[in-house]
Amino acid sequence: METSITNRFQSVRETTVRLVEKLSPEDTVVQPVVDVSPPKWHLAHTTWFFETFILQNFIKGYKPFHAGFDYLFNSYYQSQGSRVQRDMRGFHPRPLLSEVLQYRKTIDKQMLQLISSSPDDAKLTELVELGIQHEQQHQELLITDLKYIWSFSPLYPVYAERPEQPYTSPADMKWLAVDGGIYETGESDNIFHFDNESPRHKVFLYPYRIASRPVTVSEYLEFMEDEGYYNWHHWLHEGWHWVTNNAVTSPLYWKKINGKWHTYTLNGLKIIDESETLTHISFYEADAFARWSGARLPTEQEWEVAANLFGSKDKDYNFLDNNNFHPTTISEGNNAFLGQVWEWTNSAYLPYPGFKPWEGGIGEYNGKFMVNQMVLRGGSCVTPHDHIRLTYRNFFKTELRWQFTGIRLAKDR
Amino acid sequence: METSITNRFQSVRETTVRLVEKLSPEDTVVQPVVDVSPPKWHLAHTTWFFETFILQNFIKGYKPFHAGFDYLFNSYYQSQGSRVQRDMRGFHPRPLLSEVLQYRKTIDKQMLQLISSSPDDAKLTELVELGIQHEQQHQELLITDLKYIWSFSPLYPVYAERPEQPYTSPADMKWLAVDGGIYETGESDNIFHFDNESPRHKVFLYPYRIASRPVTVSEYLEFMEDEGYYNWHHWLHEGWHWVTNNAVTSPLYWKKINGKWHTYTLNGLKIIDESETLTHISFYEADAFARWSGARLPTEQEWEVAANLFGSKDKDYNFLDNNNFHPTTISEGNNAFLGQVWEWTNSAYLPYPGFKPWEGGIGEYNGKFMVNQMVLRGGSCVTPHDHIRLTYRNFFKTELRWQFTGIRLAKDR
Amino acid sequence: METSITNRFQSVRETTVRLVEKLSPEDTVVQPVVDVSPPKWHLAHTTWFFETFILQNFIKGYKPFHAGFDYLFNSYYQSQGSRVQRDMRGFHPRPLLSEVLQYRKTIDKQMLQLISSSPDDAKLTELVELGIQHEQQHQELLITDLKYIWSFSPLYPVYAERPEQPYTSPADMKWLAVDGGIYETGESDNIFHFDNESPRHKVFLYPYRIASRPVTVSEYLEFMEDEGYYNWHHWLHEGWHWVTNNAVTSPLYWKKINGKWHTYTLNGLKIIDESETLTHISFYEADAFARWSGARLPTEQEWEVAANLFGSKDKDYNFLDNNNFHPTTISEGNNAFLGQVWEWTNSAYLPYPGFKPWEGGIGEYNGKFMVNQMVLRGGSCVTPHDHIRLTYRNFFKTELRWQFTGIRLAKDR
Amino acid sequence: METSITNRFQSVRETTVRLVEKLSPEDTVVQPVVDVSPPKWHLAHTTWFFETFILQNFIKGYKPFHAGFDYLFNSYYQSQGSRVQRDMRGFHPRPLLSEVLQYRKTIDKQMLQLISSSPDDAKLTELVELGIQHEQQHQELLITDLKYIWSFSPLYPVYAERPEQPYTSPADMKWLAVDGGIYETGESDNIFHFDNESPRHKVFLYPYRIASRPVTVSEYLEFMEDEGYYNWHHWLHEGWHWVTNNAVTSPLYWKKINGKWHTYTLNGLKIIDESETLTHISFYEADAFARWSGARLPTEQEWEVAANLFGSKDKDYNFLDNNNFHPTTISEGNNAFLGQVWEWTNSAYLPYPGFKPWEGGIGEYNGKFMVNQMVLRGGSCVTPHDHIRLTYRNFFKTELRWQFTGIRLAKDR
Repeated sequence: METSITNRFQSVRETTVRLVEKLSPEDTVVQPVVDVSPPKWHLAHTTWFFETFILQNFIKGYKPFHAGFDYLFNSYYQSQGSRVQRDMRGFHPRPLLSEVLQYRKTIDKQMLQLISSSPDDAKLTELVELGIQHEQQHQELLITDLKYIWSFSPLYPVYAERPEQPYTSPADMKWLAVDGGIYETGESDNIFHFDNESPRHKVFLYPYRIASRPVTVSEYLEFMEDEGYYNWHHWLHEGWHWVTNNAVTSPLYWKKINGKWHTYTLNGLKIIDESETLTHISFYEADAFARWSGARLPTEQEWEVAANLFGSKDKDYNFLDNNNFHPTTISEGNNAFLGQVWEWTNSAYLPYPGFKPWEGGIGEYNGKFMVNQMVLRGGSCVTPHDHIRLTYRNFFKTELRWQFTGIRLAKDR
Repeated sequence: METSITNRFQSVRETTVRLVEKLSPEDTVVQPVVDVSPPKWHLAHTTWFFETFILQNFIKGYKPFHAGFDYLFNSYYQSQGSRVQRDMRGFHPRPLLSEVLQYRKTIDKQMLQLISSSPDDAKLTELVELGIQHEQQHQELLITDLKYIWSFSPLYPVYAERPEQPYTSPADMKWLAVDGGIYETGESDNIFHFDNESPRHKVFLYPYRIASRPVTVSEYLEFMEDEGYYNWHHWLHEGWHWVTNNAVTSPLYWKKINGKWHTYTLNGLKIIDESETLTHISFYEADAFARWSGARLPTEQEWEVAANLFGSKDKDYNFLDNNNFHPTTISEGNNAFLGQVWEWTNSAYLPYPGFKPWEGGIGEYNGKFMVNQMVLRGGSCVTPHDHIRLTYRNFFKTELRWQFTGIRLAKDR
Repeated sequence: METSITNRFQSVRETTVRLVEKLSPEDTVVQPVVDVSPPKWHLAHTTWFFETFILQNFIKGYKPFHAGFDYLFNSYYQSQGSRVQRDMRGFHPRPLLSEVLQYRKTIDKQMLQLISSSPDDAKLTELVELGIQHEQQHQELLITDLKYIWSFSPLYPVYAERPEQPYTSPADMKWLAVDGGIYETGESDNIFHFDNESPRHKVFLYPYRIASRPVTVSEYLEFMEDEGYYNWHHWLHEGWHWVTNNAVTSPLYWKKINGKWHTYTLNGLKIIDESETLTHISFYEADAFARWSGARLPTEQEWEVAANLFGSKDKDYNFLDNNNFHPTTISEGNNAFLGQVWEWTNSAYLPYPGFKPWEGGIGEYNGKFMVNQMVLRGGSCVTPHDHIRLTYRNFFKTELRWQFTGIRLAKDR
Repeated sequence: METSITNRFQSVRETTVRLVEKLSPEDTVVQPVVDVSPPKWHLAHTTWFFETFILQNFIKGYKPFHAGFDYLFNSYYQSQGSRVQRDMRGFHPRPLLSEVLQYRKTIDKQMLQLISSSPDDAKLTELVELGIQHEQQHQELLITDLKYIWSFSPLYPVYAERPEQPYTSPADMKWLAVDGGIYETGESDNIFHFDNESPRHKVFLYPYRIASRPVTVSEYLEFMEDEGYYNWHHWLHEGWHWVTNNAVTSPLYWKKINGKWHTYTLNGLKIIDESETLTHISFYEADAFARWSGARLPTEQEWEVAANLFGSKDKDYNFLDNNNFHPTTISEGNNAFLGQVWEWTNSAYLPYPGFKPWEGGIGEYNGKFMVNQMVLRGGSCVTPHDHIRLTYRNFFKTELRWQFTGIRLAKDR
């Protein structure tokens, strides 16, 4: 066990650093909006997580790397004391990027020593695994946040060159039928999972159909061309307020230049590719599109049951590891449920029956956010391959669009 | 059928007018906050509802009572054209209260003629019933809004005198046990119900226990005395922000005077009665109290199943018709699930499986609000007696407190 | 002296009541925006002023009319204790209009007794005079506030019928030349004046020219037709932000109906009369118009010196007493400087050299507002005739438009 | 002429770069509040100024350095097209600091070629001089903005080490008397000055006294200890709102640590030095302090006349060139009017009689800001020595404190 956790720790920590290798210090400090954190903050916060929840608890008389870092890099843990107000994370040029990288190195060294000195400490292994999973979540956030930060620039910075793709037809969208009855959802196995994915529990479902793949850009353009953004019939009351108050007329990052829709991507500005999987839409847009198309969004239980029944299990499909940093065209009929885009469900983020938060400081991890958010499933093109599961519950406020979010349709049968 | 609907129509319309009999014109125009509408607006809007959805559709060549009223008294019906912005309903001294009462009389007369001339029109009867139910919803809102409006006054206006009650011990709180399994919830019968209450559908529940009555003032005081408002452990992340940003330290309308908690009621300012049913708390407070007490809020399905199993069915317990305008002490062990206070559940307001909004303009009635709100059950001390059902779903934003809201606890078994 | 002050007191107090005679209780409670107070509040506040600054000081053991009124009707006097937040004056249906009128009667009676019992008390006479002048200021505010309140209504309430006026050509605009040199401005005489008008003091002026009358609607339309609202060249930086952020494209109360400009007036909605004096514009618009026309706004000293040199002294020109409640056409060449519209100057509202606020509670009257406002001169069509003086300094924030404000041009010579 | 302007150009441009030599790229991108720009933006904007107003006009067929820079580095020049919204200057990591420095080098080279090729072009020389003065203004802003940015850090970054100063007593504050009469103020000489300093013009002043030096920390502490921040009597109405709404209880950057007042300075966090010149206060605080001390703020004319009569002319007193980056103790009786802190006057920022903005694009430089700001005089410890004049008019909104602002008292005689 110790070897494998050591390897995973090293590999995941190195991946994070590799993600920022192409960045300049300037790219790592800015916070344009409360939900987006500076890349430098992600680098430090994930390190603080190991320092705070492991080193401080497992090393007697541990001396913090730097007194001020607790205040600077605590995200939302009340149990760990006061912290930088969330919308002020971008007010901090200091510590410098180089100093944060040094912080990472120092903590990593101490972590490796600790792990090797306590090979059989199950509690330690568990927390290291949590720290690794936490780091992977921030890998995704770091990339999505960077995209948002750069999106304001008329210079359209390129994170990763990607050759223009030859046109491929998207796979046909098929309706997969699921019978009604009692199903089990949620995780119970011994594999790592977050507290909010358990307990595994029974749920009664009515018969339904679910789309074999998420919505494409081309399908969404039909909605737009049918004046979907200007017709209140399709929208929830709150969604219609959101659309009109913010004058939303397209997915995030889209921009009409000389009459042609372009979109800013981490591969640079490009003309939209109609065959690609649609992304960067709010829950309101997902819901409105679904209504317009005579369908609806699935519940998270419907999604999970269908993914188990029909989803390809290999997970080797456009994750962070594929280095695309953008959704691709789903051209084969492989019923992909994982990767590409986070799929909005019509389920509110609430506790499963019998839910218990973890014990101790990490009890604040997931449970306290269970109100006024919607669940997303499936992971995206910037989710690490070995981080996602069919039971994984992501959650965001209904108006947010900067994540790689998309739409999978469902219907009553 | 015609007779009974005629009688109900007359009686409900008269009740509304009776509710404002003690008010002066000044009391009926003010809107201190977006969620609270002026009483005069309620009087007119309910009338506009009959005019718009019935008279205009059933009477050929119908001429509106007054051209401007469509703009002034449409609440949120996009299909009926533009309307006063919701937070500007209090910008309108005109039409005067007397003119609105005249408007009511004229529409009532036309409605009664229409009903008597089409005794067998099922569609008409259905819409009249909806209009009546709609009117009853606004009777409750009118009273709760009036309380909020008057609450700013150092003069503490009294809506209804109520003699001081002799102290009664509240009934003991018992835990009622419910077995797990498949249950049916939602309405399917021929009786009137809102679209959001159907279809009746199966749901799988785990075994649970539920409190035999809502929380009392005295029980809530324990939470307050235990520094409940100052301890983040009990609160959802969002709830903690709400509490700290708004410096909330007690239920709405509570005020410490000379070291003693008082509360403003429609019977005037009074020292709090510890035996009474607690009210005027937000979802956040309900949730925090439940956590603090080692319990949780029930889901709406748990609530409904338990209410069916254990609730007294006669409904004769502290509604609008009792003229208390305030919760009372629940002194008998009658497992009251209806009346007194709306009980926050931990269910988000979302569509039931197979939900369909009504056809036509009234399709905007309930469905378009199904996001970012929580469900409340049971009706309150200002809900009309014959308006409430065990399947009734009320819904509010998590921070709102001006309704007569309360807490019923639940626990896993 | 006593007789005359008694008569003035009675007459001014009666005038205020007469101003609200045509109003219904509903008209008197609403506050749509912080700067606008409910008419009922004006009626009570002016009464509170007499009660607080006179009765409480001159009558031994005076018992306030009602304990809560101090809190409800104090405007901004810190020395008089806490008060309703300014933007919450419209949250108070109580006391009712009838109760406020009763309050007025009671205080009036006590005031008249006091005055008659102390005929030679100079301090008392001085304060009564101040109370009268204060009341007159609120007469103007009551009318302008009422107009703003009613302006939201699609019913266009009429305060005073006024027959349509036959077209009259406006007087030619002439440039009146003033020589440079040392002048004296400000009030020193024994007549009543506010503290901010004194001391009378010397000022050095350069030669200038000033318009013989304020700008007409027709002249302002030229600016509008020349795209004045869409051309940043004419605007102060802050003004341009104001125009674009608020999408301002015409004076307040203007509305294009079927291609024709209309304006809401206290005589009802009407097509604009091009010959009339322009009104309801912000300082930013006044300044932009002046720049566009190759001129500038006068300083308050230039205005006062010119008004003394050229203004007709009789003051009998369209004040509140004329019952027009709207500017009229200035058709004769009478160089009117008083009445019609308050004229924005390019002077900031600051103390005169040697300025001293009054002693005591009334010291808060004017001095504490001397920052970030601009001076207006001349009175308007709703200023009482015997209230205005050439030295009178009115002052408002640069973006406000609900007063009867207008433009008089000036030029260097 | 050419030689001197060339030298000045080179020297001033080099000074700016020297000011950022100690900074890391991270320090140069952040914008915590709308008034504060990122240091990198200052470096680029001043360069854009030379490129836009000189190179583009004087070099035929000039090709901009980079197409996007016009959008990124235009501050507020409407004539130069659209630009980054002012509060979004910190959303731009790109171009990198190194790229901006390269931009500077390229433009400098082109500028030097242009200057040497047109030695006798008076218009060019004039614009180069303006560009130099503009650059110097941004040197001061860069330093004050950096201080504000760093002030959020618990790491208290040090810009320049400065040995602790031995205690020196501040010079006694003397009252300098000035006679009444006509004076001339404003600049008319051939030396460079901004448009807003002219024309030189006559003004009538009443006799007054003015303090021989600005207020010290120690004097301000007396105000604080006398509960000055908690007593409405001393404050303008707007100032009192500002103090209470923002819970202001000390100058900006002050912080009580273990019962002792500290202040963050560019020399690091330190215990306040009571003998030093007070700084970082708003107009409201300056005004309140003056009232509390029985004095008032001078007008800008009073300041200028007194500075001419009494001020030491050599200007060699704590400017940017002294590398203190903080006010010092004024220990000698030299009636310093220049350097140390910008002194708030009680004059609104308005045009002088006969004021004309410059012709062309640079006409937007000063004139369009002449509303709702107050004038400050004298320069500060981060103003370049050869940039300041006795006629220099600085101007800020009344609530701003991040500049090195201070107080000089005046009194009527």
